[in-house]
Amino acid sequence: MKCVVILSGGLDSATVLYTLKAEGHEVRALTVDYGQRHRRELDAARALCRHVGVEQRVVDLSALAPLFGENRLTAPRGAVPEGPYTAGTIALTTVPNRNMILLAIALGWAIALRYDAVTFGAHQGPHANYPDCRPEFAEVMDRAARLCDAHPVRILAPFIHADKAAVVAAGHRAGVPFELTWSCYQGGARHCGRCGTCLDRLEAFRRNGLTDPVAYEPAARP
Amino acid sequence: MKCVVILSGGLDSATVLYTLKAEGHEVRALTVDYGQRHRRELDAARALCRHVGVEQRVVDLSALAPLFGENRLTAPRGAVPEGPYTAGTIALTTVPNRNMILLAIALGWAIALRYDAVTFGAHQGPHANYPDCRPEFAEVMDRAARLCDAHPVRILAPFIHADKAAVVAAGHRAGVPFELTWSCYQGGARHCGRCGTCLDRLEAFRRNGLTDPVAYEPAARP
Repeated sequence: MKCVVILSGGLDSATVLYTLKAEGHEVRALTVDYGQRHRRELDAARALCRHVGVEQRVVDLSALAPLFGENRLTAPRGAVPEGPYTAGTIALTTVPNRNMILLAIALGWAIALRYDAVTFGAHQGPHANYPDCRPEFAEVMDRAARLCDAHPVRILAPFIHADKAAVVAAGHRAGVPFELTWSCYQGGARHCGRCGTCLDRLEAFRRNGLTDPVAYEPAARP
Repeated sequence: MKCVVILSGGLDSATVLYTLKAEGHEVRALTVDYGQRHRRELDAARALCRHVGVEQRVVDLSALAPLFGENRLTAPRGAVPEGPYTAGTIALTTVPNRNMILLAIALGWAIALRYDAVTFGAHQGPHANYPDCRPEFAEVMDRAARLCDAHPVRILAPFIHADKAAVVAAGHRAGVPFELTWSCYQGGARHCGRCGTCLDRLEAFRRNGLTDPVAYEPAARP
């Protein structure tokens, strides 16, 4: 299979990338700067591609950020919420239609390359989840991807029914250098350990009996 | 209804814009610079928004063009094909997945605005057509638009079953200033009158017994 991986620099998309490489597929990575505050994930994505030896395109779409309203990942103001994912923190950290935008662009590239598939790292959360990470969204986008061009492409979301602990387990098996990944929405010098994505990440490592190798703020580490 | 119109500057999307305004809907326009050679359509879109009094956002996504391969609308080389639309000329002038990319971005803005719908000007051709202008593509994108966020948005393509002559008729009724629109893929000083979109446009005016007010190259006008 020839495949474009949407690579944010977080551990989910890194696990997709390393798993596909380990399985012997031809892979290219697409990373999009959509004006996210946590710009460290862009550096993480670059480091992962250098490490695994995959051609990467980084596309500057930061001009989109003003369209995205007041969500806390791209707006210039407002604190990133702390605590575990809830409907409220999900709403505050939803970049409107981000996954469809990323999938659409990756599909455009995959069509031009005559590739077979686009993959993304959506997975399920324990309680709340982002609408554009749900299985029904991935399924309808897969149907759209087979209609949008004379060259049909599949959209694959290998972890769409898995939780984050299962993603960490798969990444561990595939040899993901977790120390190179970046998850924290705060985007500081170290992972904050208090935002929803940090708490989700820490819990996923703990459930696997593994230690997360990234650095956390000293007060945060449980 | 509150609606984002994807406005290229061509006569189809201009007709959508003026029709919605004439019906009294609240409308904003989104225009995307995706690196198209025929940049005059961007000026046309701005002129139309000033004329009709609609708030417009123009987003610079020209960083996408290198992903789109060798199609003749964004690649720096290769002639725009002349003659009527055929499967071959459609293939040469297809920007891979352009409509899904435009719809995805417009949806993101519509969600942030808490708007009801995104509209685009896809219509049917006499013989050949672009895959991402077909009714089944518009339908699957409408389903995706209701799944991608907690705030559901509709995707409306009011001319999806119409041909270009019907679009010109509707634009004529809605008072579209056709002289402000731009269709030609060549993007020269005047419409070339020889590329597929010029021939389609000329034929649509002729079938309505109307004269197209834009200027054509002298040798081209039939």
